[in-house]
Amino acid sequence: MKKIGVVVTSRASYSRVKSVLIAIKNHKDLELFLVGGASLLLYKYGNAAEIMEKDGFKINEKVYMVVEGENPTTMAKTVGIGIMELSTIFDNHKPDIVISIADRFETICTAIAASYLNIPIAHIQGGEISGSIDEKVRHSVTKFSSIHFVANEYAAKRVRLMGEPKDTIFVTGCPSVDLAKDVLKDPSFMNSSYLYSKYGGTGEFVDIDKDFVVVMQHSVTTEFDQAYSQTKETIDAVYETNIPSIVMWPNMDAGSDAISKAIREFREKVKPTNFHFFRNLEPEDFLALLLKSKSLIGNSSVGVRECSFLGVPVINIGSRQRGRERGPNVIDVEYSKKQIISALEKYLSRNKPYPSVLLYGDGKAGKKIAEILSNVIPKIEKQFVE
Amino acid sequence: MKKIGVVVTSRASYSRVKSVLIAIKNHKDLELFLVGGASLLLYKYGNAAEIMEKDGFKINEKVYMVVEGENPTTMAKTVGIGIMELSTIFDNHKPDIVISIADRFETICTAIAASYLNIPIAHIQGGEISGSIDEKVRHSVTKFSSIHFVANEYAAKRVRLMGEPKDTIFVTGCPSVDLAKDVLKDPSFMNSSYLYSKYGGTGEFVDIDKDFVVVMQHSVTTEFDQAYSQTKETIDAVYETNIPSIVMWPNMDAGSDAISKAIREFREKVKPTNFHFFRNLEPEDFLALLLKSKSLIGNSSVGVRECSFLGVPVINIGSRQRGRERGPNVIDVEYSKKQIISALEKYLSRNKPYPSVLLYGDGKAGKKIAEILSNVIPKIEKQFVE
Amino acid sequence: MKKIGVVVTSRASYSRVKSVLIAIKNHKDLELFLVGGASLLLYKYGNAAEIMEKDGFKINEKVYMVVEGENPTTMAKTVGIGIMELSTIFDNHKPDIVISIADRFETICTAIAASYLNIPIAHIQGGEISGSIDEKVRHSVTKFSSIHFVANEYAAKRVRLMGEPKDTIFVTGCPSVDLAKDVLKDPSFMNSSYLYSKYGGTGEFVDIDKDFVVVMQHSVTTEFDQAYSQTKETIDAVYETNIPSIVMWPNMDAGSDAISKAIREFREKVKPTNFHFFRNLEPEDFLALLLKSKSLIGNSSVGVRECSFLGVPVINIGSRQRGRERGPNVIDVEYSKKQIISALEKYLSRNKPYPSVLLYGDGKAGKKIAEILSNVIPKIEKQFVE
Amino acid sequence: MKKIGVVVTSRASYSRVKSVLIAIKNHKDLELFLVGGASLLLYKYGNAAEIMEKDGFKINEKVYMVVEGENPTTMAKTVGIGIMELSTIFDNHKPDIVISIADRFETICTAIAASYLNIPIAHIQGGEISGSIDEKVRHSVTKFSSIHFVANEYAAKRVRLMGEPKDTIFVTGCPSVDLAKDVLKDPSFMNSSYLYSKYGGTGEFVDIDKDFVVVMQHSVTTEFDQAYSQTKETIDAVYETNIPSIVMWPNMDAGSDAISKAIREFREKVKPTNFHFFRNLEPEDFLALLLKSKSLIGNSSVGVRECSFLGVPVINIGSRQRGRERGPNVIDVEYSKKQIISALEKYLSRNKPYPSVLLYGDGKAGKKIAEILSNVIPKIEKQFVE
Repeated sequence: MKKIGVVVTSRASYSRVKSVLIAIKNHKDLELFLVGGASLLLYKYGNAAEIMEKDGFKINEKVYMVVEGENPTTMAKTVGIGIMELSTIFDNHKPDIVISIADRFETICTAIAASYLNIPIAHIQGGEISGSIDEKVRHSVTKFSSIHFVANEYAAKRVRLMGEPKDTIFVTGCPSVDLAKDVLKDPSFMNSSYLYSKYGGTGEFVDIDKDFVVVMQHSVTTEFDQAYSQTKETIDAVYETNIPSIVMWPNMDAGSDAISKAIREFREKVKPTNFHFFRNLEPEDFLALLLKSKSLIGNSSVGVRECSFLGVPVINIGSRQRGRERGPNVIDVEYSKKQIISALEKYLSRNKPYPSVLLYGDGKAGKKIAEILSNVIPKIEKQFVE
Repeated sequence: MKKIGVVVTSRASYSRVKSVLIAIKNHKDLELFLVGGASLLLYKYGNAAEIMEKDGFKINEKVYMVVEGENPTTMAKTVGIGIMELSTIFDNHKPDIVISIADRFETICTAIAASYLNIPIAHIQGGEISGSIDEKVRHSVTKFSSIHFVANEYAAKRVRLMGEPKDTIFVTGCPSVDLAKDVLKDPSFMNSSYLYSKYGGTGEFVDIDKDFVVVMQHSVTTEFDQAYSQTKETIDAVYETNIPSIVMWPNMDAGSDAISKAIREFREKVKPTNFHFFRNLEPEDFLALLLKSKSLIGNSSVGVRECSFLGVPVINIGSRQRGRERGPNVIDVEYSKKQIISALEKYLSRNKPYPSVLLYGDGKAGKKIAEILSNVIPKIEKQFVE
Repeated sequence: MKKIGVVVTSRASYSRVKSVLIAIKNHKDLELFLVGGASLLLYKYGNAAEIMEKDGFKINEKVYMVVEGENPTTMAKTVGIGIMELSTIFDNHKPDIVISIADRFETICTAIAASYLNIPIAHIQGGEISGSIDEKVRHSVTKFSSIHFVANEYAAKRVRLMGEPKDTIFVTGCPSVDLAKDVLKDPSFMNSSYLYSKYGGTGEFVDIDKDFVVVMQHSVTTEFDQAYSQTKETIDAVYETNIPSIVMWPNMDAGSDAISKAIREFREKVKPTNFHFFRNLEPEDFLALLLKSKSLIGNSSVGVRECSFLGVPVINIGSRQRGRERGPNVIDVEYSKKQIISALEKYLSRNKPYPSVLLYGDGKAGKKIAEILSNVIPKIEKQFVE
Repeated sequence: MKKIGVVVTSRASYSRVKSVLIAIKNHKDLELFLVGGASLLLYKYGNAAEIMEKDGFKINEKVYMVVEGENPTTMAKTVGIGIMELSTIFDNHKPDIVISIADRFETICTAIAASYLNIPIAHIQGGEISGSIDEKVRHSVTKFSSIHFVANEYAAKRVRLMGEPKDTIFVTGCPSVDLAKDVLKDPSFMNSSYLYSKYGGTGEFVDIDKDFVVVMQHSVTTEFDQAYSQTKETIDAVYETNIPSIVMWPNMDAGSDAISKAIREFREKVKPTNFHFFRNLEPEDFLALLLKSKSLIGNSSVGVRECSFLGVPVINIGSRQRGRERGPNVIDVEYSKKQIISALEKYLSRNKPYPSVLLYGDGKAGKKIAEILSNVIPKIEKQFVE
């Protein structure tokens, strides 16, 4: 039995790894060791740990590590705490391989703790391109990792360029697409009564059985000071078009407090009658909601990743996803009310979805990854291969 | 005035950055902000902080961060503490650029703290190849950095391959060679009376005005369990040749306790009459000592770096420097008494030094780096450039 | 010049030490070294650091240390971080004496960091009795301290019983009363237009030039699980009497999230038309507001301390202030809507304030404390004196 | 089943709690949850964790927490780390009661982590008097604790004076005396061949079947700067009398590095022929060794505690044990070569042991404590009782 350690630190990371967790749990040669940390445990960010537990996962160890302040300094300190505590946990529980998920700022904790302890790291979603601190974290994690599960050949090429040996790179597709595939098979469960009775949320009723959009705006930590104004610009644009909107509260990052403040102020001052707000939805529910929407507006990677598979129209704003491969379903705009409204008007008059594009995998990543994990004998010692 | 933050965490890092510190201090447009941390502050590792202060540097903030245990777990936890505290320091003192030195395990603290706080990082010694955790740390720091001061074109090429924009890579040579150059000009100050009156040390008298070798063995953290036996093999080999030896205590790393234990046991059991032991020498003194020696034996990067410039014969053991460019002055061997003795015998019978090779620079790196720092306008936001 | 270190970690602590800070700053033999930490720096808790800076204080070092979660675990971890970082700061800045303020959970950081570094501690507000974790922290800090500035003879007696030498105990009165005294001299500046133009706040307009009450409910960390229901009971009671209310958001403690949630839910569901909410008021403004109010309702120590001096009617709920000496202005009740309403009705029909009681000092504590600090030669080494 | 958490952080703490651990392990209603931390895990301090495991204890979680430097600052930081990590462990494993042992500086971690998490603390060895930071830590832990297991009526009285309710104080005797009692029954196993074959140690052979003394000198953290000279004075005195000596390396504390340095220098410079050095002995072996010795010299609490029961002559130096109740077997001296030699000469000419004194219990503390733990229903909420 190989013990596979996975540290899940946010709702976003859970979506990206859920199908892998299921496949590991079901694999006869693998044992799942789950650590829940950071914003995954916090009510304010939707307490995604509860959702995981309802999904049947046992979280073996929980680690509070978020230093409050939601600014660059506290983001760094959060990483410091995470490393300290994950080291103790890995030392006491000795996983054989540890999975590091994508590029959120705190995933570097997992990579450093495991790699310093000479535990090989398997990295999911390496080799992609984006903005924000994510761009640095992602490639840095690559250089700590012994196995790379990448979404597509573009990503594989970049991981290779960075000096990683060819036989450690596996193009499995992205596990987040696995969920999208399941949802696409039968999304009919999603409707207003399902959504509101399950989650409540706050704000006015938005009928999702009619036209609506979803807004999800995250912080760009390298543009930390602009989080407030960027969010205001986005919200104001949507508000001006009068389209009913579902707004998701942001992930925890430097700047997320400013985003929340912009949303709260909008709510209190404008008192909009067609906005509803959710802290967190289960991954599949969120995807099914997107499928019904006229557009996802914001800067989430879901827009370029899951939505390319789902064919959901996306208005992608600013630098956060800059450089990531994307399908025909994405319009890129700046933080400009004018550009956002213009793109939104185009989508509101459009009726059929975009074709599904397999840019980030075919929906079987979880099982492929589990199978490779069960067979691979990773090396700890690495060396740049030109 | 640009405020340049430098975090020096060990005697080794001090050697590598000393000429840069001098050049920054003397540059009219730059202000030096010095943080001393980790083993730099510890008596056991030679309290290099005192040496720096004697050299006229003011250490603005001191941070104890080494978690005791000298194993992989404590190495990781040391990083955690370092990040937490450097974040606070950078937040309170706001340097404009932070220099991250080379590849020691704790330099990742500097890189993460600065880069999460959106302070651009200038990295020295990126793009090189080696073994141990250093190989991972070095490239990881590259991916967090905005400016790269590399030793040679080989290194520059690899940094470029890793996706760094060409105009952020500067081939300045390695600042550690600057010191070597100064020493080479006039090494005559070094002799037995100078050495012993200045440092004392322990063990028997070894006359450095006659034939002797220098042994410096560091831990390979990814071969953590073998540190003891590797050191024993090395020491036994040297002892068998009967050549008088100067032994340096190891750097602080996972495994350094085991190295120290091997040395201590050798000393107590064998009671050798021609071995002397030092905790730390000032960088220039160490280089001058090497110049007088018949060989440097061990796995320090000094062997492939400064010694290629000095032309000192080197027996490089094991994987720690594997892959690094080297001159004709290096014989590579395994941890094998036989191989070490055979190489050593070759050197003992050799009388002239090797030619100086400019593989790691021409000795002017410090000033070049300071000058570039004063002119450059680094970007925080990065993106992989294929 | 004696350097006096003061670590201020919350708006509450600032009120309690403000007059001391002024007196130190103005004392010719004392130098003030200010550290701002924990919730003092957080927007969510009113960013009291900004208020301090507006008041003319320079905060020498800022330390983020609050681990998010607002539960017992994160409260403990916050203490851990605080100790780590304050140790570094005290080591680098070497204050001669450090002041530890009262009994908030994070003040133990200051006491431990200073006392382990052999810096004598002067404790303000020792010897009092209360509930919650405060009761443990307060007496524990006493046992780390070398000088005790207590509010009254009752407190002095208890500090003496705990083994502290008589000549280290000074009955100076409580510095928070100093502010109350200033406000009592001329509270006329406070009125609706002053309050709302200065702070804004959220919710409906409450005319403070007419009858109103103030509600301030903090968490009892040892009754952590009941924070939500306790708050609900309090708010519901006040709401039922129909009296316009000013509600203060809670301090940061285990349970404060649940208190905030109870308030938010009340606001969103009930949509009350005569409630207004503030994050933070400057200390003097808060006291002047209390002076105009019909009652302070909740469990703050302000009710038994400053309000006894001001003569403001107080409804003190639950165990948090249990045991603290109090004047005739306090009615103690349980978390019972009935009891709260009954007490409130008594106050609403009452028109004159209670007489000022000097239970916590005569309003000159700040200057007395500064003067003693300038003269005292505290001992680090202690021993229980029976 | 009640889950009893015990955090053991040093060899000294292990001796003090071993009989309690056995009694808990054997009690049908109790479950033992063991955490090993700090110097218990370090080779340099004798890796007492290995001894515990050989004794049949399973250490459930291990936590490295010692920040290297052995000075006041690192001592404080060690506490910070300890609190952070113990909080996570207590949160994940939820012991019903946590035992805090005695007064070593790091035991405050256990007290704070547990008490902030609302887990009741049972404190062993409260109410005693001493010097060093221990004096502050001990009483501080008392104020965090819900149950007090004290050694004698003197201690009980002081705990009561400090405001603790009478029914929470149990005079059980000190568990360290339990071990002494066992050893006293049959100490015949101890002799030179047993000792050296089991532990080795370093230095020359000292025949313990002839006259010898034991030297154990710990740091007084509040006299941190004098650790080196104090140790030198002690060692020089013993050396001058020419009596063969067994020297124990010190506990880990601020100053222990200086003590070690004094011992090392003595060894290297003087090259004594009748000194032997041990890092750590199992508790019973150490006590049996003391029984055979002419005297224990130094400042350990073993001298006033276990040795009063064993009747071993003790020369107690300096302030560290000042104020602790002691039997007729103790001569108190200052750090004065003259006084130490004079006391030692008295003992060397004395042939019978002192009578056993039951000042610290009758040797049944472990079982009494386990039994009380199984019955007691401790309260978390406390209040000073005059």
